[in-house]
Amino acid sequence: MTTIKELQKEYAEFKQHRDWEKFHQPKNIAMSISIEASELMELFQWKDNVSIENIKSSEDLMRGIREELADVILYSLSMAQSLDIDIEKAVEEKLEKNKERFDKETSKEITKELEEWNSS
Amino acid sequence: MTTIKELQKEYAEFKQHRDWEKFHQPKNIAMSISIEASELMELFQWKDNVSIENIKSSEDLMRGIREELADVILYSLSMAQSLDIDIEKAVEEKLEKNKERFDKETSKEITKELEEWNSS
Amino acid sequence: MTTIKELQKEYAEFKQHRDWEKFHQPKNIAMSISIEASELMELFQWKDNVSIENIKSSEDLMRGIREELADVILYSLSMAQSLDIDIEKAVEEKLEKNKERFDKETSKEITKELEEWNSS
Amino acid sequence: MTTIKELQKEYAEFKQHRDWEKFHQPKNIAMSISIEASELMELFQWKDNVSIENIKSSEDLMRGIREELADVILYSLSMAQSLDIDIEKAVEEKLEKNKERFDKETSKEITKELEEWNSS
Repeated sequence: MTTIKELQKEYAEFKQHRDWEKFHQPKNIAMSISIEASELMELFQWKDNVSIENIKSSEDLMRGIREELADVILYSLSMAQSLDIDIEKAVEEKLEKNKERFDKETSKEITKELEEWNSS
Repeated sequence: MTTIKELQKEYAEFKQHRDWEKFHQPKNIAMSISIEASELMELFQWKDNVSIENIKSSEDLMRGIREELADVILYSLSMAQSLDIDIEKAVEEKLEKNKERFDKETSKEITKELEEWNSS
Repeated sequence: MTTIKELQKEYAEFKQHRDWEKFHQPKNIAMSISIEASELMELFQWKDNVSIENIKSSEDLMRGIREELADVILYSLSMAQSLDIDIEKAVEEKLEKNKERFDKETSKEITKELEEWNSS
Repeated sequence: MTTIKELQKEYAEFKQHRDWEKFHQPKNIAMSISIEASELMELFQWKDNVSIENIKSSEDLMRGIREELADVILYSLSMAQSLDIDIEKAVEEKLEKNKERFDKETSKEITKELEEWNSS
């Protein structure tokens, strides 16, 4: 199994071999993440919220999603590495924060509000 | 060390406990990834491509980057899990594809073109 | 009635009075347009495709949409002006191009494909 | 000179003739605006903040900017029309709000902070 650190190391080498660190500055990589996220989103454009099963049954769509998701994660891991951010720890901490922020009561209120919208 | 699969498992439980799987459909999560990526980008808005050292010396900026990056990755891992995409493998494959696509010659051409723009 | 050119003139003065032309470079403004578009999109996040009537009946939502749409257009007009792009003409030409690209047959095929997805 | 209302009318007809109003729901159009804004931004990706003159001297780049800007505005005008938003008035009001929000003192502080970042 490839770990996050191995993927980061491999991508760092990819940049070094091409002498591309100079272009991969955080501002530019933030743009890259956003651009790739938009390409991922484009795959769902005009479609209603179709079922997981239908999405999975389309080979073309799945291939696109897989590639765009990989791009988003690749650039995100690259930015984390450039800035010495321990990304597993950062994700873990954000998850804990979300658990506190969306406690039982708050979650129920959000659910109720969204259900009202979506049944309207 | 937390692995990707552990983070995905923990986030899946977060959704289940709140009965939020119904909102976390792939189209909506694609929008979420894009929105979080945009919030990350906003932190670099108006600033020129400032040095890594300067970014790292700003505690506020680093806290923001860390949180937004975590959000991007959290939603991306969540989508991968919903659609049974082995994300380590997908990233690994994309990296191999990039290595082939940006071979020595192509990379040099891109570098040359960008250097011309950036010195203009 | 305010025309596009009047809005552009007024916004140009807004930037000049604050000595902000130096920050409003095309790359930065492209980021701004994308960030504002994302804030607009966030207003529809988690909601299904709800009816026009329901959206219009929510004062809060309408106020948000109105403001974010205005931001998107303001920055877009600003970029057009900086680069001497006649934006009415550009929009008019794009519309003509779309009419040709999406001729009767092509449009029908797209409609059919999307209807299949959305009824699945 | 084509006015905003004329462009909106023409685009409304474009949608009607193709029976595409059903796809052009506000949530989907918000995604479209974001996707087009991202395509605009991609044209500036990896390039430093190059001068207006250099951008204008590249025919290819200018053609791209012109088209993507037109797409952003076209979708924005379309959403405004669907939701009965008087867009000239909305932009005018947002501009007035910005003038108040960024008064002399606030603007100077922002400028100072950004100049410190950009000279660092």
